Amino acid sequence: MNCILLPCDNFSADTAYIDDAAQITHVTQVLAAAAGDRLKIGQLGGQLGTGQIASMHSDKIELCDVQLSCAPPKKLDLTVVLALPRPKVLRRLIMDMTALGVRHIVLINSYRTQKSYWQSPMLDRLDEFVLEGLQQGVDTIVPRITLAKRFKPFVEDELAGLITCRAIVAHPYSAQSFAQYVQPSSLALPSLVCIGSEGGWIDYEIDLLAKQGCTAVTIGPRILRTEAAVNVILGQWLL
Amino acid sequence: MNCILLPCDNFSADTAYIDDAAQITHVTQVLAAAAGDRLKIGQLGGQLGTGQIASMHSDKIELCDVQLSCAPPKKLDLTVVLALPRPKVLRRLIMDMTALGVRHIVLINSYRTQKSYWQSPMLDRLDEFVLEGLQQGVDTIVPRITLAKRFKPFVEDELAGLITCRAIVAHPYSAQSFAQYVQPSSLALPSLVCIGSEGGWIDYEIDLLAKQGCTAVTIGPRILRTEAAVNVILGQWLL
Repeated sequence: MNCILLPCDNFSADTAYIDDAAQITHVTQVLAAAAGDRLKIGQLGGQLGTGQIASMHSDKIELCDVQLSCAPPKKLDLTVVLALPRPKVLRRLIMDMTALGVRHIVLINSYRTQKSYWQSPMLDRLDEFVLEGLQQGVDTIVPRITLAKRFKPFVEDELAGLITCRAIVAHPYSAQSFAQYVQPSSLALPSLVCIGSEGGWIDYEIDLLAKQGCTAVTIGPRILRTEAAVNVILGQWLL
Repeated sequence: MNCILLPCDNFSADTAYIDDAAQITHVTQVLAAAAGDRLKIGQLGGQLGTGQIASMHSDKIELCDVQLSCAPPKKLDLTVVLALPRPKVLRRLIMDMTALGVRHIVLINSYRTQKSYWQSPMLDRLDEFVLEGLQQGVDTIVPRITLAKRFKPFVEDELAGLITCRAIVAHPYSAQSFAQYVQPSSLALPSLVCIGSEGGWIDYEIDLLAKQGCTAVTIGPRILRTEAAVNVILGQWLL
C-alpha cells in the first residue's frame, strides 16, 4: 500500500478520515504512524496528496491539513483482453494490471477456461483487488472491467469497437515476434492486447481474433506463467 | 509444466523413466496421458525432445523411443541481484527468473530485508523452484544461484567482477528513466540488474551500488510488486 485511497465521502474541507479496517491496520502496523505524521493519500477518482494524522482510534483515523495537489499518473492507452484465469491468480492479475495503469480490462471465456472459474466468489471481489492495485501503483482512477462470458459474440460484435489503434494476441506458436511487430519503433504500440490463460488459445480462437484485426505475435520460445506473461508484455508500455 | 525434465541418471540408450511423484501426477492427472502417447521431455543440463510412454505404474512411468534433438533456448546474458524477498513470493520469483532464462541469480541482504527471511525453510528448496521454472519455461540449464547474506562485502568485493557489460539498479526515485538509459537502442542492454524488495533500496545502498558501476534508473511513477517489477524489467531482454 504505497498510498491510502479514500472515497470522496470521507473528505470535508481540509480534513478526511480513514475507517477501512485494512487501511487502519496498514497505518498502525506497517507504517507504525502516530499523530502528527503525514500520510500519502488520494481521493478515489481524484487527486493524490498527503494528510496529517490528527487523531487515531481503533476504528477511525482523523486527518487534518489535507492537501490533494497531484494528478494521478496517466492511464495507458490500452485494453487487455484476458482469458479468465484460475481464481487463485485472479487477484494478483487484477492488482498488477491496475497498478500498471491498464484503462480497460476484459475478462473473457476461452476454450481452456474451466467453466467453474465463472462461479468463483473471487469475481465478486474485483473492486477490492482494483483498490489494492491502485494503492500499490499510486493511482486513483479505476480501470473499466468487462466480463465477457461468451467468447464468440464478444469477439464478433464488440471487439472491433474497442480497437482504437492496432491489436495483438499473444500466441507462442506465431511466426511473428512481438519485437518484429513493433519495429520500426516509430509505429504506435497496439491499443489492445489479448492474452490467454494457462494452455493459451486454441486455433479457432486465434482465427476469430485475427478476423477482428488482432495480429498473433510470440514473445519467444520460453513459456511463462500468465502473471509473468502479462507483466512482461505490459512492461513494453512502461519502459 | 510444459516439459518434464529428468536427471541424466534416468536415461539409458533410447529409454528413460519418470519416478518423481509431482511429474507422475502431472502426466496422469493434468495431461491424462496413456501408454503410447508422446511426452515433451528434457535432460537436466542437456537437450530437449520427446519420449513415448511404454508403461505406467503408480510410482514409475517408463519411456521408450526417446529422442533428444533440440538445444535448450539461449540463456539471457544477465545477472539479477535481488534483495531477498518475503518467503511467500520467493518461489514465484525464482520460478519466473529461471523461466525467463536469467543466467545468474544473486539473493542479497538489504536494509529493508527482514532478518527472519534468511532463516526461512524456503531457502532450502531453491533447487525445487528452479526445476519448476525450467519445466515452465522449457529449458534444461539451471541458473547459478548465489546467497549474499552481507550486503557491503558482496557489493564492494564481488559485484564489479560480475558486471560484463553495463549495470543498473532499479530505483523509483532516480531522475533517469530506463527508456533514456537504453537509448540509443544500439547500446547493449545491461548485463546486471539490481532489484530491491518491498520498500526498495535505501540511499546508502544506492550509493554503494553506484560506486561499483550501477546506474540508478526508474521504471516510472507507478510502484509495482517485486514480482511484477522483475517481470516488467526482464521483459526487455525477451521482447
